[in-house]
Amino acid sequence: MSTGDETLLEELLSGKHRALARTISKIENRSPGYRDLVSELYAHTGDADVIGITGSPGAGKSTLVDKLAETYRERGETVGIIAIDPSSPFTGGAVLGDRIRMASTVGDMDVFVRSMSARGTLGGLSTATADAVKAMDAFGKDKIIIETVGAGQNEIDIVRTADTVAVLVPPGSGDDIQTLKAGILEIADVFVVNKADRDGADRTVQELREMIALDDGGGLGGGHHGPDASTHHGGDDGSPEGESERDSAWTVPIVETVATTGDGVEALVDELAGHRTYLVESGERASRSRKRHAEEIRTLLREDVHTMLEAQLERSGGVDELADDVRRGETDPYTIANELLSPVERCLERLETERPTRN
Amino acid sequence: MSTGDETLLEELLSGKHRALARTISKIENRSPGYRDLVSELYAHTGDADVIGITGSPGAGKSTLVDKLAETYRERGETVGIIAIDPSSPFTGGAVLGDRIRMASTVGDMDVFVRSMSARGTLGGLSTATADAVKAMDAFGKDKIIIETVGAGQNEIDIVRTADTVAVLVPPGSGDDIQTLKAGILEIADVFVVNKADRDGADRTVQELREMIALDDGGGLGGGHHGPDASTHHGGDDGSPEGESERDSAWTVPIVETVATTGDGVEALVDELAGHRTYLVESGERASRSRKRHAEEIRTLLREDVHTMLEAQLERSGGVDELADDVRRGETDPYTIANELLSPVERCLERLETERPTRN
Repeated sequence: MSTGDETLLEELLSGKHRALARTISKIENRSPGYRDLVSELYAHTGDADVIGITGSPGAGKSTLVDKLAETYRERGETVGIIAIDPSSPFTGGAVLGDRIRMASTVGDMDVFVRSMSARGTLGGLSTATADAVKAMDAFGKDKIIIETVGAGQNEIDIVRTADTVAVLVPPGSGDDIQTLKAGILEIADVFVVNKADRDGADRTVQELREMIALDDGGGLGGGHHGPDASTHHGGDDGSPEGESERDSAWTVPIVETVATTGDGVEALVDELAGHRTYLVESGERASRSRKRHAEEIRTLLREDVHTMLEAQLERSGGVDELADDVRRGETDPYTIANELLSPVERCLERLETERPTRN
Repeated sequence: MSTGDETLLEELLSGKHRALARTISKIENRSPGYRDLVSELYAHTGDADVIGITGSPGAGKSTLVDKLAETYRERGETVGIIAIDPSSPFTGGAVLGDRIRMASTVGDMDVFVRSMSARGTLGGLSTATADAVKAMDAFGKDKIIIETVGAGQNEIDIVRTADTVAVLVPPGSGDDIQTLKAGILEIADVFVVNKADRDGADRTVQELREMIALDDGGGLGGGHHGPDASTHHGGDDGSPEGESERDSAWTVPIVETVATTGDGVEALVDELAGHRTYLVESGERASRSRKRHAEEIRTLLREDVHTMLEAQLERSGGVDELADDVRRGETDPYTIANELLSPVERCLERLETERPTRN
C-alpha cells in the first residue's frame, strides 16, 4: 500500500469524514490502490448494523430513511447512508445534493450520506456498494443504511447484502402487493406500510398479513417467515447452519409509518433492533455473513478473470486475428476457447493440489 | 465426437429436419457433446442470409415473418425461423405451438420454425441463438430469420447477430418513434411500417423519414444511414475496414406493409436483398462477420472461465472455507482473489509467449 493510502486508512480509522469520503470515491472509481485499501479495511469491520431499505419509487423511501437516521442520532448512534441511484450520474448528483441539504438540516455530520450510481457495470455497482459499506463499518458507523429502488435483480442483490431488509409498501391496490411477490417477499425481514394515513392503508396491511400467512402456510394475523426464505439473503447455497435452524422462526412484522411526520418511525427502529437480536441469537448472523463473504469472493474472482482475459486478448492483438481465422473457416470459436483455456484449466488443477489447506 | 453425434451431424448435413431439430435441442440444453457438434458445424456455414426482425409487441412481427417465409418459399428458397421468446418456457411453448400450425398451413416443412426462450442466463440465450443459426446455416437454409421483441439490451444483442435487421414500427403517435431512438435506430437496416392501412401510417412514415434525415445530417425525403452507425452491429470496436467505408452509405429504406394481407411483403423482400448486395459489395459483410466472430470468442471465453472457476471452487470445497476465514478476520476477499488468480495470470502470460503466431 502506498504511503498516501496508509495515511488515508489511518485517518479513516481515526474518524475523519473526509477520509471516508475519499475512500469511497476511490472505491467507486476503482482508483489505483483501492483494492489494497479495501483489503485493509476488512479487519476493522463486523460491528455495524447494515440495514437495507427498498421499495417502489414514490413509496417514500428517502423521507423514511432521513427520519430513521434522525431517530438513530437522537439515540446516540452514528449513521451512514448509501443511496443507490439506478439512473444516470446526473440524477445521482441531484439525489446527493438533496441529501447534503438534509444532512445539514440534521445539523450533524455524523449522518454521512453518499449516493452511488450505476455508472459502470451493474455487477460492479454491487461490489462497490459492498466495499463502501466496509468503509463505513471500519470508520465506526453504528448503523449503515443502504437505500435502493427495488426495481431489478441487481438492486435486489445489493439490498440483500444488508443484515436486515425493510421493504416499503405504499398503500394502494392489491395489484401492488401481487407484483411484490416476485423477489421482494423473500428478502423482506420487515414490511413497512408508509403513508399509513392514506386511504387504503388498512387494506394493504391486511393483504400483506394474508400474503405472509399464505407464504408460511400458517394462520392469519401475523405470519411466520421461516429461515428457509431468510437464507436467500447470502446466496443460493443453503449452509448446514441455515438448515438446522428450521425450527426457529422470524415473524415478519408489518410496521405502519408516516415518514413525513415521523409517526411509527420509533416502532420501526424497535423492529429493526428486534431482527438484529434474532439474527445474533439464532446464529443466522454468522451464517449470513459467511454466505455474503462467499458471494464476495465469487464476484471478485469473476470480475478479475474478465479483466484478465480482456487484457490478455488485447495485449496479444489476438481476438481480431482469431476471428479472421474463423471467418476463413480454419477454426471455430469453440476450438479457440478450448485451445486457450485448457492450459489455464491445467494450471488451476495444479493450483488446487498446491494450495495449502487452511484451518 | 461420439458416434451418435457424428451420425447426427451427417444427417443434418444431408438435410434431415429431425437431425436439425435434435441439434438445436442439444444446443439449447447444452447437452454433452454439443460443443464439438457446433464446432464441426462452423466449417459448413457462411452461405445463409441471416435476417433479424424486431419491434415492439403488437407490431405484427409474427404475421410478417410468416408472410416473409411464404414469399421466400414461393421464390424457391429454404427458410429457417428462430423466434426468441423473452418470457417463460410456458409461453415459449405456446408460441412454438402456433408456429407449428403456421408451418402446416404453409404445407411445407422447408419452413423450419424453432422458438427459444430465456430459460438460462441471458448471455446464454444469445450464444444459443447464434449456435442455432449456425445449425440452420450448415443444414443449408437459404434464409434464416431471427424474430425478437425489441425490448431489452439482450434482445438487441441477439438481433444484432443478423446480417440485416428490419425494425417494425406500428403506426401511431410520435411518442413511439421517440422511444425507438434508444438503441433501435442504430441497428435498423430497414424500417417497416406494418399495419400501413391504419390511421396514422403516413405520419409515422414521415416521422421516420425526418428522424433518419436528422440522424444523418442530410436532407429530408430519404436519409442516409452511414456505416458509422451500421458498424455497431458486431461490437463496439471499429475495425479499419469499417472506418474506410465512410464514403459509401446505405440508405435505410422505409417499407410499408400490411402483413395480414401480404401487401408490401414483396417490396420488403427486395429491400432485404438490396441490403445483402450492399453488404457484399461494400465489404461490410466480411467486416461484420469478423466482428461477430470476435464477439463469439469473447463470450465463450467468459462463459467457460466462469464455469471453470465455479467448478474449481466447488471441487476444492473451498469457497465456504475461505468465507469462514474472512469472517474470522484472517483474510479478505481481495487477498483471496489475488492469491487464487496470480498463478492463473502467470499461466495466461506464459500462454501468450508460447502461442504460435497465426497467419
